[in-house]
Amino acid sequence: MTEKVCVLRLGHRPERDRRVTTHVGLTARALGAEGMYLASEDKNIKQSIDDVAERWGGNFFVETGVGWKKCVNDWKADGGVVVHLTMYGVPMTSAIEEIKKHEKVLVVVGAEKVPADIYNMTDYNVSVTTQPHSEISSLALFLDHLSDGKNLNLEFPDADLKIDPCERGKRFKD
Amino acid sequence: MTEKVCVLRLGHRPERDRRVTTHVGLTARALGAEGMYLASEDKNIKQSIDDVAERWGGNFFVETGVGWKKCVNDWKADGGVVVHLTMYGVPMTSAIEEIKKHEKVLVVVGAEKVPADIYNMTDYNVSVTTQPHSEISSLALFLDHLSDGKNLNLEFPDADLKIDPCERGKRFKD
Repeated sequence: MTEKVCVLRLGHRPERDRRVTTHVGLTARALGAEGMYLASEDKNIKQSIDDVAERWGGNFFVETGVGWKKCVNDWKADGGVVVHLTMYGVPMTSAIEEIKKHEKVLVVVGAEKVPADIYNMTDYNVSVTTQPHSEISSLALFLDHLSDGKNLNLEFPDADLKIDPCERGKRFKD
Repeated sequence: MTEKVCVLRLGHRPERDRRVTTHVGLTARALGAEGMYLASEDKNIKQSIDDVAERWGGNFFVETGVGWKKCVNDWKADGGVVVHLTMYGVPMTSAIEEIKKHEKVLVVVGAEKVPADIYNMTDYNVSVTTQPHSEISSLALFLDHLSDGKNLNLEFPDADLKIDPCERGKRFKD
C-alpha cells in the first residue's frame, strides 16, 4: 500500500506558470502528498504554498531549484517508484492497482513541454484520460485513485483555519 | 442517473484567469461534460477550447458572455439541479449519491471571488476536500465521482487526433 507520495513539478516557467504550479502544489497537499519538488527556482511559489500550509495545517513542504534527474534517481535509489503523468501513457485505470502496491510514489507532473528523457527514466508513464486537459486535474484524479478515495476528507494537524461544512454560506470552526 | 452535465464558470477575469479557465473547460470536456457557460466575455478562451474539440473530437461547446443568474434559473426551470463547488460546502462524499439521482447537473465553478447570492441560488454547495486547492481539481474529482469513474476513458467521435497509449514516448493512432 502506498504510504508516502511526493510530487515533482517539471518545466515550470516563473511568471507564466505561477498559478498553475501553485494549484498543483495545493492539490498535492489537499490530497495527502507530503511535498512538492520544483525543478525551477521560484521562491514566490514556495511562499504562497507555505503560507497556506501554515494557516491550514500539516507539514507539506516545497523545495525549489531541484535537479529533476537527481530527484528521480534519488527516489528510485531509496526504493520508491516514479510515475510520470502524461496523456501519452498507459491508462491510469489499468496501471493503478500495480502502482498502489508500492510504498513510495513520486508523481512527476510536467508543464507544456517536458524533457524527452523523462519517458525513459520513470517506472510508469500514465495517462489520466487520453485527452488534453490539465496537469492539475490529472494529478487530482491520480492521487484520489491511488488512495482509493480515502484522502478526500483529510484533517490537517495544527491548523489555524478549519472549515465547518455547511449547506449555505461560509463557516469556520472555532 | 446523471446523463447531462454542463459547467458554469463564474468570476473569470480575462488575461489573469485565461489558463485556469481553459483548464476548467478542457477538464469538463475530457470527463464527459457537454459544454461550458462562461459568465464573462472572452473569445480567446472559446477559441482555444474549440480548437481542441475540433482536433480531438466530440461536440463540447463553450458559450461566452452568459448571464449567470439566468443560466442557473433556466437550468432549474428545465428540471436540472445546480451544484456549486466551494470549499465551504458539504463534503462531496456525503452529497454525491443524492446528486447522482438527477438527470441534469449544472456544476458551478468560481474563481477567487464569487457573488454571495450563488450560495442561495444553487441546490447544493459541495466541497471537494475542505482545503484550499484548485477549482480545476475540484471539478475533476467531482465529475469523476459523479460518473463513478466511468468517464476516465471516453472516446470522442470524429477525432483527427487519437492517442495510442504506450509505456514509453508518444504514439498516435492512424
